Amino acid sequence: MFTPTLGHIPAPQASWSERAWRSWIALEEKKIPYQYKEVNPYKKEPHFLAINPKGLVPAVEFNGKALYESLVICEFLEDAYPSYTPHLLPSDPYERARARIWIDHITKFFLPPFFRLLQSQDKEKQDEARQEVYKALSTLAKQKKEGGPYFFGEDFSLVDIAIAPWAERDYIITEHRGYKREEVGKEWKEWADALEKRDSVKKTTSNKEYYTEIYGRYLRDEAQSEAAKATRAGRAIP
Amino acid sequence: MFTPTLGHIPAPQASWSERAWRSWIALEEKKIPYQYKEVNPYKKEPHFLAINPKGLVPAVEFNGKALYESLVICEFLEDAYPSYTPHLLPSDPYERARARIWIDHITKFFLPPFFRLLQSQDKEKQDEARQEVYKALSTLAKQKKEGGPYFFGEDFSLVDIAIAPWAERDYIITEHRGYKREEVGKEWKEWADALEKRDSVKKTTSNKEYYTEIYGRYLRDEAQSEAAKATRAGRAIP
Repeated sequence: MFTPTLGHIPAPQASWSERAWRSWIALEEKKIPYQYKEVNPYKKEPHFLAINPKGLVPAVEFNGKALYESLVICEFLEDAYPSYTPHLLPSDPYERARARIWIDHITKFFLPPFFRLLQSQDKEKQDEARQEVYKALSTLAKQKKEGGPYFFGEDFSLVDIAIAPWAERDYIITEHRGYKREEVGKEWKEWADALEKRDSVKKTTSNKEYYTEIYGRYLRDEAQSEAAKATRAGRAIP
Repeated sequence: MFTPTLGHIPAPQASWSERAWRSWIALEEKKIPYQYKEVNPYKKEPHFLAINPKGLVPAVEFNGKALYESLVICEFLEDAYPSYTPHLLPSDPYERARARIWIDHITKFFLPPFFRLLQSQDKEKQDEARQEVYKALSTLAKQKKEGGPYFFGEDFSLVDIAIAPWAERDYIITEHRGYKREEVGKEWKEWADALEKRDSVKKTTSNKEYYTEIYGRYLRDEAQSEAAKATRAGRAIP
């Protein structure tokens, strides 16, 4: 969990997955002081559960109340810290809406086949999922503005944050599932290269070794996260 | 498609489903002048496809550019018409985030079982889906504030708009799938009763006869909408 420390709030627990990572990148980008606390998913502490009954991560504790859902947290940080820059959404209403449309695209069209690609034990289903991943990413990357490395050109935004964790971690599917960044297309290759070099991303990642065990469970389809279970059951990722 | 007429923009095509209906309710709530145009899903006109290449509805044309995704459009109307009231999201950042969390809950936990309940031809699967619908709605309704009929008490908001179409249309699953509003619980019953009486909802609905044919295709699992196809394939609803 992340606790913005501006209000000198007592620090609760924290943890993170790829989606949790988004909130962390947003805090770093905006330079909002915060405390980072791991949450043991198998033994959640009473304070954490008291303010966050579903026990979901990422979570932010703010004035003693908890919020969850990575993208909701990112929008919350924009709303609650309006003087902190950079702003992660464009000020123009049409461009803001475009950002939201393409973030929604990531949720609906990239995440489900990404998890299917990781978890599927069947070669044919892996091939199908990989093609869906390619299509989702190339469609997204074609919407990128020219004139800079990010979705809105020079301006780093919530669209970049929404996809950044999978740019940085795509080596997993490269090593195990035949994915190649360049096969998505030139636009995605250049964008993903830029995302993994972004300071806020580099600063919040861990060593590859840390993830080997976690991803191993996904690759053997033994993971017990909510996302893994939903993927296995053919359901929407919660 | 909806065209806010403030800019005297030429009128394009329009159409609507339950989700499209949300954008329409938002326009009515905020009293934003607009033109409503049906889109023939089997014969989309060139102007519509030129500004909206995916051909998705609902769509809003604004200054010659199109936006789609019902909830993105609602947020866009807030951003683009800041002086139009009522505001559909609370001004407090924490409450705004709560609105977004519960809208996300509707998308993830109510819509998929709703479509499964409609489309499933198997009694056991229908029972399972109906229980999921009950759980999603009762969890949502328990978050409703006291002191008024809507999610935020007296204040009608985007959370109400996000679920309103299914409050008004739940007679379909009552007539065909054994759903009863009161079995969800008292909170939902009262809330749904209030939603279907809201002026903006009543003004934008059509006669039941109009829907009989459309829902008939869902109830026989013959519908060919993107949502119906995704539900049949066990995929996330696009």
